[in-house]
Amino acid sequence: MQFISEKCWLPFIGDIGPMTGTPAQTAAAELSAMGVDAEIQVDEGMQDAFRIEKAGEGYQITGGKSGVLYGAYRLLMKNYLGQDPVCEETPAYKLRMLNHWDNMDGHVERGYAGKSLFFKENKFCYDEKRMHFYGRMLASVGINAISLNNVNVHYPADRLCTEELLPEVKKIADIFRAYGVRLIISVDYALPVTLGLDTADPLDERVQAFWDRQVKLIYSYVPDLCGFLVKADSEFRPGPYMYKRNHAEGANLLARALKPYGGMLIWRCFVYNCRQDWRDHSIDRPKAAYENYAYLDGQFDDNVILQIKNGPYDFQVREPVSPLLYAMPATTKAIEFQLAQEYTGQQIDLYYMAPMWHEVMDQLPHLPPHIVAVTNLGDDQNWTGHDLAQANLYAYGCMAWQGRAFNGEETLKDWIGLSFGPDFGEAKRLEKMMLSSRSTYEKYTANLGLGWMVTPHSHYGPDAEGYEYDFWGTYHRANREAVGIDRTDKGTGYIQQYPEEWAKLYNDPATCPEKMLLFFHRMRYDYVMQDGRTMLQRLYDDHFEGLEESEKLLEDWKAMEGKLPEKSYRHSLDRFEKQVKNARNWCDRMNTYFYRFTLIPDEKCRKIYD
Amino acid sequence: MQFISEKCWLPFIGDIGPMTGTPAQTAAAELSAMGVDAEIQVDEGMQDAFRIEKAGEGYQITGGKSGVLYGAYRLLMKNYLGQDPVCEETPAYKLRMLNHWDNMDGHVERGYAGKSLFFKENKFCYDEKRMHFYGRMLASVGINAISLNNVNVHYPADRLCTEELLPEVKKIADIFRAYGVRLIISVDYALPVTLGLDTADPLDERVQAFWDRQVKLIYSYVPDLCGFLVKADSEFRPGPYMYKRNHAEGANLLARALKPYGGMLIWRCFVYNCRQDWRDHSIDRPKAAYENYAYLDGQFDDNVILQIKNGPYDFQVREPVSPLLYAMPATTKAIEFQLAQEYTGQQIDLYYMAPMWHEVMDQLPHLPPHIVAVTNLGDDQNWTGHDLAQANLYAYGCMAWQGRAFNGEETLKDWIGLSFGPDFGEAKRLEKMMLSSRSTYEKYTANLGLGWMVTPHSHYGPDAEGYEYDFWGTYHRANREAVGIDRTDKGTGYIQQYPEEWAKLYNDPATCPEKMLLFFHRMRYDYVMQDGRTMLQRLYDDHFEGLEESEKLLEDWKAMEGKLPEKSYRHSLDRFEKQVKNARNWCDRMNTYFYRFTLIPDEKCRKIYD
Repeated sequence: MQFISEKCWLPFIGDIGPMTGTPAQTAAAELSAMGVDAEIQVDEGMQDAFRIEKAGEGYQITGGKSGVLYGAYRLLMKNYLGQDPVCEETPAYKLRMLNHWDNMDGHVERGYAGKSLFFKENKFCYDEKRMHFYGRMLASVGINAISLNNVNVHYPADRLCTEELLPEVKKIADIFRAYGVRLIISVDYALPVTLGLDTADPLDERVQAFWDRQVKLIYSYVPDLCGFLVKADSEFRPGPYMYKRNHAEGANLLARALKPYGGMLIWRCFVYNCRQDWRDHSIDRPKAAYENYAYLDGQFDDNVILQIKNGPYDFQVREPVSPLLYAMPATTKAIEFQLAQEYTGQQIDLYYMAPMWHEVMDQLPHLPPHIVAVTNLGDDQNWTGHDLAQANLYAYGCMAWQGRAFNGEETLKDWIGLSFGPDFGEAKRLEKMMLSSRSTYEKYTANLGLGWMVTPHSHYGPDAEGYEYDFWGTYHRANREAVGIDRTDKGTGYIQQYPEEWAKLYNDPATCPEKMLLFFHRMRYDYVMQDGRTMLQRLYDDHFEGLEESEKLLEDWKAMEGKLPEKSYRHSLDRFEKQVKNARNWCDRMNTYFYRFTLIPDEKCRKIYD
Repeated sequence: MQFISEKCWLPFIGDIGPMTGTPAQTAAAELSAMGVDAEIQVDEGMQDAFRIEKAGEGYQITGGKSGVLYGAYRLLMKNYLGQDPVCEETPAYKLRMLNHWDNMDGHVERGYAGKSLFFKENKFCYDEKRMHFYGRMLASVGINAISLNNVNVHYPADRLCTEELLPEVKKIADIFRAYGVRLIISVDYALPVTLGLDTADPLDERVQAFWDRQVKLIYSYVPDLCGFLVKADSEFRPGPYMYKRNHAEGANLLARALKPYGGMLIWRCFVYNCRQDWRDHSIDRPKAAYENYAYLDGQFDDNVILQIKNGPYDFQVREPVSPLLYAMPATTKAIEFQLAQEYTGQQIDLYYMAPMWHEVMDQLPHLPPHIVAVTNLGDDQNWTGHDLAQANLYAYGCMAWQGRAFNGEETLKDWIGLSFGPDFGEAKRLEKMMLSSRSTYEKYTANLGLGWMVTPHSHYGPDAEGYEYDFWGTYHRANREAVGIDRTDKGTGYIQQYPEEWAKLYNDPATCPEKMLLFFHRMRYDYVMQDGRTMLQRLYDDHFEGLEESEKLLEDWKAMEGKLPEKSYRHSLDRFEKQVKNARNWCDRMNTYFYRFTLIPDEKCRKIYD
């Protein structure tokens, strides 16, 4: 019985003190400290891949520069779980990244686990020992690049790539290097202007010269920097559109500066009209990413990566896959997920994300070469606010490593075994709770593909019309007869952005997956669903069921009292109690919202407030 | 052609330098500086009253201590307007007060005219010359008491009645004394606890001793302090309920400490459950004040004044008179208005309040002896944000002086003459604009007595369901058939708090004034109004008309270009343009809101967005 939350899924590994050498040296030190007999053989050509073989009484780990370290952790974890460690592995994605949304003032944008791990009061400020432990956590699941600072780059974070702060960036890079993790810097597109030029126009030679100089400087401090991350022309951030340049012109500017050093330019495709008038039905926000980028296929330099959110909106509980991920065959892409539970319970409500990732992969015929996730981390003792939210970080690493071979259920079993000990008696119960958690949350918040019915700004808790008349382009236009936006051929035409087979599937309510019905279609409340229930009754049922299931989660957790360390038990108990309260709010408010439109009572006579 | 906004309605009076003597000395100095021949005769028994008589070529002003100053300004203003100044006047209300909601950090709660006139960065900080001008403005309309600090008393304002800040309070009191204006301090009921006692229980002798000591200290600095103002047990403020004492016990504690010095204890009756669950229909917030106070009639000490908001809710555009103002015959009351345009356009939208005050007086058989208003002032150059909002402060003073004799139309004429000069050619147009402004604002925001459909927190702009599921107790429960809360005998019974003749009138939709219909009744959209229109059509019509009228206001203002000082013209032009935008938002959102419930189009085929 264990659950030492500050060590996450590696509670069994002792302290070995900060490592400062190569990943191979880290690997050797970790194995030796744990008394594991294993020989390490670096074969640089293998890159991140590794092979674990029996060698006499012990093992041999052969792998690339970082590969051997991944192999070492794999060996330690498999040993601990009593699994056969012999294996040969190559990662599915090349860059397996994390984005921190940390501001230098210490606040984490959409952070639900305390303050920044890196910054405080506009300075670097971190627990060095914890940084090393973080490096170990990342390497143990194969994550090989992280950005430290928020994509919304506020002063003084825009100085991270200047002489002023580069010595501090270098220190962090040095720490993570021992774990095979490279740094990414989020840069402000307007930096040339901030630092004195009269333009940031990507086609202006002085701007190119500015970035060339700046990048040269950066690489003199951090020679293995992974690259830059940019959020441009998005939600009031500056970008090439300010100079009437397209986003290929905008991205290539930075890519060319990075190219000589092997750096990547990672460009977020989160561009849309965020000053939409709700009265204007001609704009449909989910179309925006495709419209802004698809036509530019082939125009990006080869060290540009387009970072595309998994869905066309913004990390809602249920979205179809972004059509941009099907498009642009000649462009390098990364798919972006959000571990931070902005719309998915804020690390109060339980939400294990693997089932959602499976759904995304099922919709995607080809996985892009790179993957990224916004972290769910902060300086809370347990890193993730909710102890159980650690599973999402672990599972994300596994998914990024395994790609289609990823199995969210097996991964969860391993995570439980590692975190609570391989003999944890409540493993099955916990596994069941976590596997059902996405479905539960979806039911009481945003079923049938309805999104955005959240409290504005905070994004926790229900508000059916909270964004309905706002300028963010997120409307459902519910009235007394129907709800949803018609995105078919007859509606906004969004569906046409998909390859034909998907477009056809989604275009017809009869074939559209019901869980996405109200994403693609405007439907009457009396529409009869596949199982014979009306859509309205289904809305009611789901909300009631979601509430019941959240109550069941609380009961299940209570049943574990005494079977977990008291502190762990109490800490999560408080979260489960809050979740029930949240679920009740959602259930009652959403049901009342639709009841007031229809005045049709619940068929099962459950209480709907009027 | 003038409009010197920093001198408000007294642009014609020159500077005489700070006055430091008695009001009579101030009066003499003002008259002499303006070259007006008038003799001043103080008759203390007359108190605030005065008499202006012809005396030879000049005048004689006879009056009480402050009365002679009121008389002097009356004489100057009447002279300027070319009116006969001979008159004999006695004020209708005894205390004619203003409440500032200024925090010591400089922020004005619900302030729309800049920062505090008195405080900055948690210190006293003011323009002394401006303070004297403020004193003159107040005296010119007979206001005789002001509270400086917010009724929500935040640190360090809770120290205003301690040794720490009393020397500063004394300085301000000295300034205003020359204008016959006495100070009120808003105190924190929990001050004894803050300063070290283990209780603030009003029945604890140590608490009484604490306040006795504190008040003695205060009066040693400010011997003519008007008294204390207290917001207790309201919106998270401490109060006697924390000790299971009623509000008579709570108020008398402070009243007894003030009594030996002639001080008044002014106790706000704004107490309600601000953590209501929207699901709970058994609570009806407008009932709260009556329920908390009416049964205590006769139990308050004679130097207690209950300060009662004009309506039972909270300064909405349209409310019936608070039933508490009809009750408690054995208790001294003050009626409270809000000049700060929190719900009435925030000093962006034009809103001349006098018509509303007339409506209140028409509903009240007996006026209470005291009156108070929350100011609309800040440190903006023009004091009130919108130049034309100065009229509300002026008119409030006139109303407080004249009581039932007040005439909002005549008052406005005088204000325009004083402010823009007696020969201002556009006076009639401006008068018309201002007189219709309340009706216009009501039409596009909150017609038929519907309130609270505002943007949460800011209270500017529309949000039909912004407070609908919140905990403030302000619901309308609109659904596809009807809207409003039934407050009749068959509903929450709120109507029973009124005297019988009013209860009877309000109880029946057929006799209830239509402008308050949805305050008292839950009505179907197809209800036929007195003129034959359905209620829904009336909702549509009012919103469209309100928008049209706001466009007309803008046109009217534009027609005055060149007829006003350019700066004044531009400044208000910007406000009128914003008002039209606001009116369009209200019109479109409210119409769409009701259209989505009903799917009944406008009879006149005007555009309602779906």
